[in-house]
Formats: sequence, structure tokens, C-alpha cells
Amino acid sequence: MAGNTFGKAFKLTTYGESHGKAIGGIIDGCPAGLEIDFEFIQHDMDRRKPGQSKITTQRKESDEAEFFSGIFKGKATGTPISFQIQNKDHKSRDYDHIKSIYRPNHADFTYDKKYGNRDYRGGGRSSARETACRVVAGNIAKQLLSPVQVSAYVSAVGKLELTKSYSELDLSQTEKNLVRCPDGAMAEKMEALIKKTRKKGDTVGGKITCVMKNVPVGLGEPVFDKLHAQLGKAMLSINAVKGFEYGSGFAGTKMNGSAHNDLFKEDGTTESNHSGGIQGGISNGMDIYFTVAFKPVATLMQKQKTINDKGETVEMQGKGRHDPCVVPRAVPIVEAMAALVLADFSLLKKTDRI
Amino acid sequence: MAGNTFGKAFKLTTYGESHGKAIGGIIDGCPAGLEIDFEFIQHDMDRRKPGQSKITTQRKESDEAEFFSGIFKGKATGTPISFQIQNKDHKSRDYDHIKSIYRPNHADFTYDKKYGNRDYRGGGRSSARETACRVVAGNIAKQLLSPVQVSAYVSAVGKLELTKSYSELDLSQTEKNLVRCPDGAMAEKMEALIKKTRKKGDTVGGKITCVMKNVPVGLGEPVFDKLHAQLGKAMLSINAVKGFEYGSGFAGTKMNGSAHNDLFKEDGTTESNHSGGIQGGISNGMDIYFTVAFKPVATLMQKQKTINDKGETVEMQGKGRHDPCVVPRAVPIVEAMAALVLADFSLLKKTDRI
Amino acid sequence: MAGNTFGKAFKLTTYGESHGKAIGGIIDGCPAGLEIDFEFIQHDMDRRKPGQSKITTQRKESDEAEFFSGIFKGKATGTPISFQIQNKDHKSRDYDHIKSIYRPNHADFTYDKKYGNRDYRGGGRSSARETACRVVAGNIAKQLLSPVQVSAYVSAVGKLELTKSYSELDLSQTEKNLVRCPDGAMAEKMEALIKKTRKKGDTVGGKITCVMKNVPVGLGEPVFDKLHAQLGKAMLSINAVKGFEYGSGFAGTKMNGSAHNDLFKEDGTTESNHSGGIQGGISNGMDIYFTVAFKPVATLMQKQKTINDKGETVEMQGKGRHDPCVVPRAVPIVEAMAALVLADFSLLKKTDRI
Amino acid sequence: MAGNTFGKAFKLTTYGESHGKAIGGIIDGCPAGLEIDFEFIQHDMDRRKPGQSKITTQRKESDEAEFFSGIFKGKATGTPISFQIQNKDHKSRDYDHIKSIYRPNHADFTYDKKYGNRDYRGGGRSSARETACRVVAGNIAKQLLSPVQVSAYVSAVGKLELTKSYSELDLSQTEKNLVRCPDGAMAEKMEALIKKTRKKGDTVGGKITCVMKNVPVGLGEPVFDKLHAQLGKAMLSINAVKGFEYGSGFAGTKMNGSAHNDLFKEDGTTESNHSGGIQGGISNGMDIYFTVAFKPVATLMQKQKTINDKGETVEMQGKGRHDPCVVPRAVPIVEAMAALVLADFSLLKKTDRI
Repeated sequence: MAGNTFGKAFKLTTYGESHGKAIGGIIDGCPAGLEIDFEFIQHDMDRRKPGQSKITTQRKESDEAEFFSGIFKGKATGTPISFQIQNKDHKSRDYDHIKSIYRPNHADFTYDKKYGNRDYRGGGRSSARETACRVVAGNIAKQLLSPVQVSAYVSAVGKLELTKSYSELDLSQTEKNLVRCPDGAMAEKMEALIKKTRKKGDTVGGKITCVMKNVPVGLGEPVFDKLHAQLGKAMLSINAVKGFEYGSGFAGTKMNGSAHNDLFKEDGTTESNHSGGIQGGISNGMDIYFTVAFKPVATLMQKQKTINDKGETVEMQGKGRHDPCVVPRAVPIVEAMAALVLADFSLLKKTDRI
Repeated sequence: MAGNTFGKAFKLTTYGESHGKAIGGIIDGCPAGLEIDFEFIQHDMDRRKPGQSKITTQRKESDEAEFFSGIFKGKATGTPISFQIQNKDHKSRDYDHIKSIYRPNHADFTYDKKYGNRDYRGGGRSSARETACRVVAGNIAKQLLSPVQVSAYVSAVGKLELTKSYSELDLSQTEKNLVRCPDGAMAEKMEALIKKTRKKGDTVGGKITCVMKNVPVGLGEPVFDKLHAQLGKAMLSINAVKGFEYGSGFAGTKMNGSAHNDLFKEDGTTESNHSGGIQGGISNGMDIYFTVAFKPVATLMQKQKTINDKGETVEMQGKGRHDPCVVPRAVPIVEAMAALVLADFSLLKKTDRI
Repeated sequence: MAGNTFGKAFKLTTYGESHGKAIGGIIDGCPAGLEIDFEFIQHDMDRRKPGQSKITTQRKESDEAEFFSGIFKGKATGTPISFQIQNKDHKSRDYDHIKSIYRPNHADFTYDKKYGNRDYRGGGRSSARETACRVVAGNIAKQLLSPVQVSAYVSAVGKLELTKSYSELDLSQTEKNLVRCPDGAMAEKMEALIKKTRKKGDTVGGKITCVMKNVPVGLGEPVFDKLHAQLGKAMLSINAVKGFEYGSGFAGTKMNGSAHNDLFKEDGTTESNHSGGIQGGISNGMDIYFTVAFKPVATLMQKQKTINDKGETVEMQGKGRHDPCVVPRAVPIVEAMAALVLADFSLLKKTDRI
Repeated sequence: MAGNTFGKAFKLTTYGESHGKAIGGIIDGCPAGLEIDFEFIQHDMDRRKPGQSKITTQRKESDEAEFFSGIFKGKATGTPISFQIQNKDHKSRDYDHIKSIYRPNHADFTYDKKYGNRDYRGGGRSSARETACRVVAGNIAKQLLSPVQVSAYVSAVGKLELTKSYSELDLSQTEKNLVRCPDGAMAEKMEALIKKTRKKGDTVGGKITCVMKNVPVGLGEPVFDKLHAQLGKAMLSINAVKGFEYGSGFAGTKMNGSAHNDLFKEDGTTESNHSGGIQGGISNGMDIYFTVAFKPVATLMQKQKTINDKGETVEMQGKGRHDPCVVPRAVPIVEAMAALVLADFSLLKKTDRI
């Protein structure tokens, strides 16, 4: 019940605190016979890892996943795949000053009230470090889904927002810059904004858009487990996410039905795609696309007033090494969670008909 | 796996097609001893039912829930509570013309491809009629949650959007007009827009905002089952929903951390509430608020081109009685799903500590 | 959590109290396209129903299932199949005398302590009447499983025990007598014993053996969800069951490995079948067989001392109409639960490999 | 779905193959604040470990669990507790000879047919080595359950069977001999039988009885998740188990109801306890007791005919180091699984009433 498992058929359970010995996870339900490409896993891990560029945190974490089970002779055996990532670079002393302090917009206060006993070092279980496990499992999900393509990119940093839709962009350019925005000119502006924000000891929010191509018709379940409902949950479960929209999204609320309806062509595809590739909660074969809103990182390199666990006002300042903007590193996390959702529904789909 | 169950501890399973004999559900996990207020259930049913006002569909459905089990001498017994709502007013002939037609932006195409055998009458399982069951169960969840208050209202119809936040509005006014917008002047404009849209045989989208007060600290689970992730899934599982945001939401992406952080007061409350009452996925005792985006209804009272199940182009026009704008009737559905999420986490919370 | 759901992929949720308005259930996960044979369902219902013969309870219950959803044009649509059985013949006054009495070996005491508010009429939720719902769903599972054959029969009544194994019996004879024992001579003795027991106002226990033929290789999951573990749970969830054994069972504990091992033939079948068709928790293609122990019915037509809810000693005597021996009517229930287990694993099996 | 998770609220997921790098597990749902006694965990690990005495396998495995998460300052934090046990002493060469051979009464054949790709070394995932993880988690469950006492003992080895019931035995004597039978005289005979059997290169089955004292009233759920149904599943999920009975068990089938009924005393306890502490699937506060049947170990130190994966007859002989009788080492495994079941229901119980 404690919510550390995601998925029904392709099921990921994760564990680990930011400054404990290690984090890791178990994938239960990966079909036997899947050949595992470990380099591809590491590739996504490297896209997420701290210290990867001058606009991310300078914390160095090697972030290599060690595998213990479920893979034999390079292929999945159908038994649980377990993996672990060591916590090597943890400077727990950086967190001594927050032992009894509730940092604003962190989980310190709520964890303390809920559990009484919390690992305060580096955010403990509430740290985004946990998402490294999602990237490992999500990458294996990507491998299972092939030839489905899952591609996310940064579509906004603060007020700098791409106005082009995904279909007008060249997504092969996403990894060509540090921000992971496929529009090079915009990427430069975003990078400048992130640097400027960091200099002020401040942080800034942003958005990530994700596109899934080659998705077969029929993924997703009616009613409560609609494909977009599960995608929404997946995204909202990522640290710092405040919103999710797919297809026409919030803009669609302003439209009339006559403009919003996607007319069918004779081959079953549609002329427009306001539906975002999903109708009635089920994929219709068109591209699936959605956008995720990330708040600005809560840890600031400037003084802030807050309270401690005795309810006294104290002053604090972020130490350690933190991201001024989370979206560049969150791109592979969004992809990973999207892939986990699709992989799960791909397996469930096998039971649709006799 | 087929996704017709919602919740872990307070668990709703629903069944039924729009034009079958009946729809209904089973609530498993309602704690024994809860006194059931049947009038309160009917009150919410009436807020959702078709034909309730001149700006909704004129379809008449009595929508009364009959209860079969799990309640003895007016109180829950801890065993499954089952209920059923008859489908009385179904005019299935209204749907003969769509037997082999895939209506744009409906689930006709995807259900057909997924299952092969579908009940096409009135949308079958994909019809929003299913949400009547959610309102029944959600109302019982509200009763369990008392004194938590769950209040939703229409915050936008098309381009007409409330600019005031929920805290500046008098939510006791919501039910005073047909639109369910607590700002009377705006409600009038919205009503006019809906009528004008219907006259054109068109439809329009909108937004609903929901506020939850008196929520105890500690609801929600870390990592995958964050409170807002489950709320997001709940909302996105409602027909026609395209987006979800909570707290600062999409607007928060444009903010700096220094402005976004909610500073603690000494009593543990916060000065601002960009967090939307949730930190680290767990309620912090502040008001929870979120907004849900609804697309325009897909069934238009005007001619549209589409295809049939042979891939031939055909022309069709919506018959039957449909809503020009879904949000006024969706208000109790949003409340119901929100209540189901909170009720579930309220029960799960009991196992947090030894 | 409250345990009224069985299965993961082919999932049955039931509801209803013995003397409430109705009992029923929802099957979620039945694959689309399955043709439903309603007469076959009724056939199994008739095998379970009270009043069917002179050695069962004389209570008359028509026990017809009405279906509300999930079936269109005679075939499953992939959406939830819901059904209901009315409680017509309830003579609740028969139970007024036990309102505040805890009957020995019933659930009165435990329900009262657990829930505080219980429907005491006819055992309420703890009544074996609930198993009628299992028979409905189990029969649909049988239809899904075809050509797998699930055949149960009475193998013991009290001390009268069949010494022949299932393979020495002609199972087509099971329904030829009231006891449902395929050995006619033994059936006569059993019938006499049941009648004699009833005359004394007493009851007697018994055993049911179940055989499943044509089961494909590969059903069942390693570790916790072994095929026989799930079968065992299924059987132990039936009212009055005290034990379960499969293959060599308890007798196998006395054997040496050299005698117990089932040697392979070159076609992959085995010479003996002490494994009972299951190895490592997974079906191996041989016949699956198991035996279930039923205690004597607790309701006696003779005086017994017991206590009431104030802890006072009282005297009581069973009223109403009860079975002197439960096994003849439990045969279709055992089959139903076995079929539910196999149907579930049949669907899960589809995700074993890429 | 793949069945490597046990429990709903206190949830164990395990991983690992016998000769992979490591085995381990994640406990999700352990309530925060539980003080963890690591020595007590090791104590139960030592009772299960191979090489512990002259009547078990001589394989040496240190079997120490390393913990990675979920425990801070000696207490559970409410987040997932993960642990791992290294596979140090694996002599994989011992298994080269079975690479393409299907050993009788093992899972080789069924795994191969189900998954296609299996880790054949030492039985891989089907090895009883996996139960070490259950002992770790089960011990933590014991700690959570205190003052409930879970005590298992060997009640039969082959035809040598204790005739006394648990209440006539001094269970404090169980650990005083190698067999773990609390009757010293019988233990000697059993030990002699095991030794004699091993000398012949053969194996022998046996039984374990388990008693749980101080169990509160109200554990277990009606209908499908009855306490004894879940106990049965737990036991049947242990390697080599062929049967389960509780309370009067199979012997109860021969009794009349008048003798079987447990009459209430005025304090709510019962004079006899044929119910085995469970009525209607719910604990009634009396001692819970059950017996588990183990088949003889399938690996023999003598020649046997079998087939290989090409369907050819081959001759094989067990190598490696195996137990001649599994029950002495299975005692802590039975206790562990029983404790997991009770811990789960203890948490679920918290949601019974408002």
C-alpha cells in the first residue's frame, strides 16, 4: 500500500534514500526473452545524472546500475530483474544543518508529521535521486516497446516557451544542447536564463513535452485506467511536477467542438490530432503527446526564513549542490515514466480478446 | 487488470453500459459503522443528472441508486456495498445510425479495434453515464471524510475564465446558478455563451476548480502514489478531461523559486500556498486545490464527415440529447473522484506508524 | 483490501448478504469475444442450489443469475460482466432467535468483534449463499478455459472414503446420484449415512476431489503465486473447508524420494503423477488433481449451549433448513473456484514471453 | 503479475536466483517507528541456513542480510526496507551436468516450457534459496506482531509422526535437537531415520506444525481473503509443500458436528478448538494452529533415468550437497510465512471500523 510500486503487469518497485547505502529496484513482469542492452540503459542514466553539464548541479554521481537477477545469457528470464545504484558521493554533513529544520516546499514537514522517524539527509526518500531507478526500469521498458519511440524535450524554461508544436520541431536536435530543447536558438536563450538565475542564487521552473510515435492502436483501459490517466499519474509522481496536459490540453478548453474534433481519413488516421493520440482512454495509433509542468526547485542558494521541528523561526540557506532548473535532467525521467506506462499497457493488451 | 476498479483500501468497481439494463458498482472497504445519509447521495446524483436545467442535455434520467448489500440498520457493515442505477430512458434507436460509424473524438474506433465486439448504443461503456456510479461512491467517501469539505466549481467556459482564485470567491454561491460558477456575474456570461453555442449546434470546453478544506496532514504516499498523482489520475479518468494542475500549476513553471516557496509560520501553516496543500506528495494541512481541463463535447448537432467500419467516408449528425458544455454537470463528478482519493488515503494512513 | 475480490486478470468481486435484497458480482477482465452459454451457467447453478434433493437442505432458492452488462449480442465485450441473484425465499424470522446469540463454529462472534455492526440474518455475508456468485463466474471461467475439463466429485462422507484414485473411477457417473460420488455402491452408503445423520439432528463432514484435464503446460507463477498455492487459497476460501492437498498430498510425506519422483517419458509426460500435474508451481501438462476437506456443518437440529453478546450462557437449537452434509452441493463450488484460478493464470500466461 | 510479491499492506517482493550474484527483497509497508532487532533476524537466518548440522545439506552459506534503506537510527522510517544476501558459495560447475536435463520433480521442465530462457544453475529462481528472503522479512513481521508468538516444529518425518497435539508438547524444546521436534525421544528416532535415508542416497518427506498464540480477535477478511486461506496460500508457496490443514483439518471430515462444534465459555473463549482459532475466516482469539505437508526432496544421490531438452532419455545422479529431509530447515520458513500473513492482516485490520 505504501506506494513504492508502479504498474500492474510490468511492475517496478523502488527503494532507497538519497544518502543511504544505495538505491535500487525490482522489475517484476518483464517478459522472458527480451535482450537487454546495458549500454542503452547507461546512456539514459548519463542523461539524468548530476554533474553532467555546467547548467546542472555539480554533484558527481557515477550512477551505474548493477544487476543481480532476472537476466541470464543477456536475456530476461521472466523472473524479477533487480538492480542497484550505489550512493557514493554523498556528503551527509551538508545536511546536518537541516536535521531539525523544515525547508520550505520540501517534504521535511510532511514526512516528519506522517512518519515521525525520517532520514533527513539529502531529502531521504523524497529526494529526486530515487528517479534514477525509474530511468533504469524505463529504459528496459523502452527496449520492450521497440519500435515505439518515446522522445521528450524541454519546451519551456520560466517564461521562455517554445511556440512551435512538436511536429514542427526536429526532435533529433534535442540532445545537441545542454538544455535539451530541440530549437537551438531557444536553447541558447534558455541556457542564458538558467545561468543568470543561478547567479542570483535562485531557481526557475519549466516544461517538458513528450511525444510517442508508432504506438499501436488499443493501449489503455476504459474507465479508471485510461491511458492518459495513467500517463498523468506517472508524470505527477515525478518530483516537482505541478501539472499535466495531453493533446489539446488546457488550450482545448477554449475551443469549440467543431474545431476540436479530429476528422477521420479513410485509413483510420485523423486529419488533426487534438485528441493527442488517445480516444476514450485508448490509443488510436496517432502520435501521443503531452506536456508536464515543473515548479522551480525549492532549494535556493540564498537566505530564507523557515521553522524547525519545535515551531521556532530560523534562518537557513541551501548548501550542497543543487540544480537551478530541473527540466534538462528531467527529460529522461519523463521518457522513462512514459515508457513504463506503455510497457504495462502493452502487456495488459494481450488479454483483451479470446 | 481491465481497469474498472479505483482505489486500494476504499475501492470502487463499476460496471454498465449506457443503454444496457443498468449501471452500478461495488464499494469494497468502507469501514463498518459509517452511518449512510441516502438523501445526501441523491442530492449529488441530482447535481449530475441529465435534464436538470435548460443548459444541459434534455435527456431525462431519474438516476436513483438502489442499494443491495453492506448496509444494515442504516450503517455500513464493513462488507461490500453494492448499488445499481436503472437505465430507464434509453432511446436506443437514436443510436442505430452510428452502429457501424466511428464518430470523431469518441471511443467508437478505439473500442472496436481493441475489443472487436462493442455495445455501440449511446457510447456503451465509454459513455459518461458511468460517472453516475462514481457520484454514488464519491458521496459515501465524502461522508467518511467529514469534516473534510470538497467543493468544486466551474472556473472557465470557453474563453470566459475566472481571474479570482478560490480564496477570493464565496463558494457557497456555486449552486445558486445553472453553470455552477460562484461568481454570479460571470455565471450569467457563461450561461449566455453556452446557450449561444448550442444554438449553433456546437459545443464548448471549460474548466473546473476543486478545493478541499480541513484535510489532515499526512495523506498521500511518497514516490508513485503521491496525493496529487492520484488526484491527477482520478480527474484524467473522467470523460473529456485533457489536463490537470494543482497549486501553482502551469503558471508555477514561470516563477522563480524565491517567489514560489511557501514560507512556514510558526504554527506549521504557510504564508502562501503555491504548494496547493501538498508537499512531497503528502498533504500538509493547507487547503488542497486543483484545476481540471475539459475539452468541448464531441457530439455536435451539425453535419460532420467521418468514416464507417469499412473505412468509407460517410456524413453524420449528432442525434439524441447532448450537453453543449459538460462542465456544469461535471462539478459533482470532480468532487466525487476527489473524495474517493482522499477516503482511500485516509484509510491507508492508519498504517503509517506502529 | 477487504478481500471480496479474487484473481488478477480474470477478476471476480462479489457482494451480498444471505438475507439482503440480492447477492451478485462483477467479473472484470473477461476477454472480449467469448460466447456466453447461459444454460451452462444455470446448469451449474442448479447443481449448487438448495432444495435440489432429499439429502440437502429443503430451502428453495430459484437461484437464477440476471446479467446487466459486459455481454452484447451473446458475446463478452471486454467490459465488466455484472450479475445478480435475488434473495427470494428468505425467512428472516427464522433468524430472530440468533440476533444476539453467537452460534458455535459460526462467524457470529468474530464478525461482531471485528465490525460491531453485522447483518445476523442467515449468517449475513458469512453465509455460503455467497458461493452462488462464485458458481456463476466460475462457469464463465470454464467456458473461457475450454477444452480444459474441470471435474469434482465427493470422495468421502464422514468415515466412508473412496480408496480408488480418480483415474480408476468413471467420472461421468458423478451426477448419476444425489451424493455426487462416481462410485455408485459407495454413493448409496454415503446417502444412507447422510440420512441417518440428519435423523439424529446431527451433521457430518466429507471430502471433495477435483481433477483438471487438458491443462496446458505453463500455468502458474513461480514463488508466491504458485498454481497450487492459488488453488489452495481458492479452496480454503470456501465455507467449511479445513484442508487442501494436491498430488501425493499428505500421504506423500511418508514416501521416499526414490518412490515419489515422477520419471519423464520421452514425450515430456511422466510415468507416475505424484506431482499432481504441477512442478515448481507451474502446470506440466499432466492431470491436476487435489482434495479438499470439509468440516461437518455447524448448525445442528439439536440443543446446544452457547453464549450471547452479553457473555451469558444460553441454550439454542438450529432452526431453518440446513444441510446435514455440505459436500454434495459443494462439488460445483470447488469446480468454480478451480476454474477461476485456471482462467486467471491462462490470461497471465499471455505475458510470459516477448 | 509475475507473482513475486506477497501481501497487501505489509508487502514483500523478492528477487534472485540460486547462483546469481545475490538474492534479496523489498518490504513495502512496514510501519514507521518499529525498532529493528538485527540479531533476531540473524537468529532465524541461522535456523534456516544450509550446513547448520549433520542432518542437513553440507553446503555452507553465510546468509547474512545487508540492509540498504528504510531504517534510520535503528527504526523503520515507513519507506521501503531493502535487503540483500550474497550468493557466495555457489559451485555452479556442480550444475553443468543438468544444463539441458530436466530433473524429475523439479521445475526444470516447466520453467523451460514457460519461459524459454532459464537460469539452470542450482535451480535458479525455483531454488529454495529464495526462502532466505522470506525469513528476513518474516522475522521483521514477527517483530511487528509482538507479543504474538509464532512457533513451528517438526511433527512428522516419513512415517514417524507425533501423536500428541501441540498443546501437550513443550514447544520450548523445539530448538534443543537437530530435527526441531519438541519431543526429544521422537526427535532421536527422526534423526536416525534421516541419517539412514541419506546413507541410501534417498530422501524422505515430513510435516511441520505451527502454532500462533496471543493473536488478537479480528484478523482476516471474509470471503476470499480468509485468514486460513491466506495462511494456506503462504504455506503452499513454500518449496516442496503438498498440503495444508488447520484446526481439525482432514481428521475433521470424519467427525459429526455435535462433536466438532467448539462450545463457547462465557468469556468468549471456547472449550475445544477444532476451529483452529479461526471462525468465518477471522481469528477468534484462540490459538491458531495448522500443519503443512512436505514431499521428499527430489534430488537423490542415486542414479535416475530422465530426459533432456531434446526429449532423449538420459541417466543422471544428484551432485552438489542436498538435504535428505527438508523439514528441519523449513521450520523457520513456515514461521516466517505465517508471520507475514498475520502482519499483513494486522495492518489491514486498522481500517475495519470508522
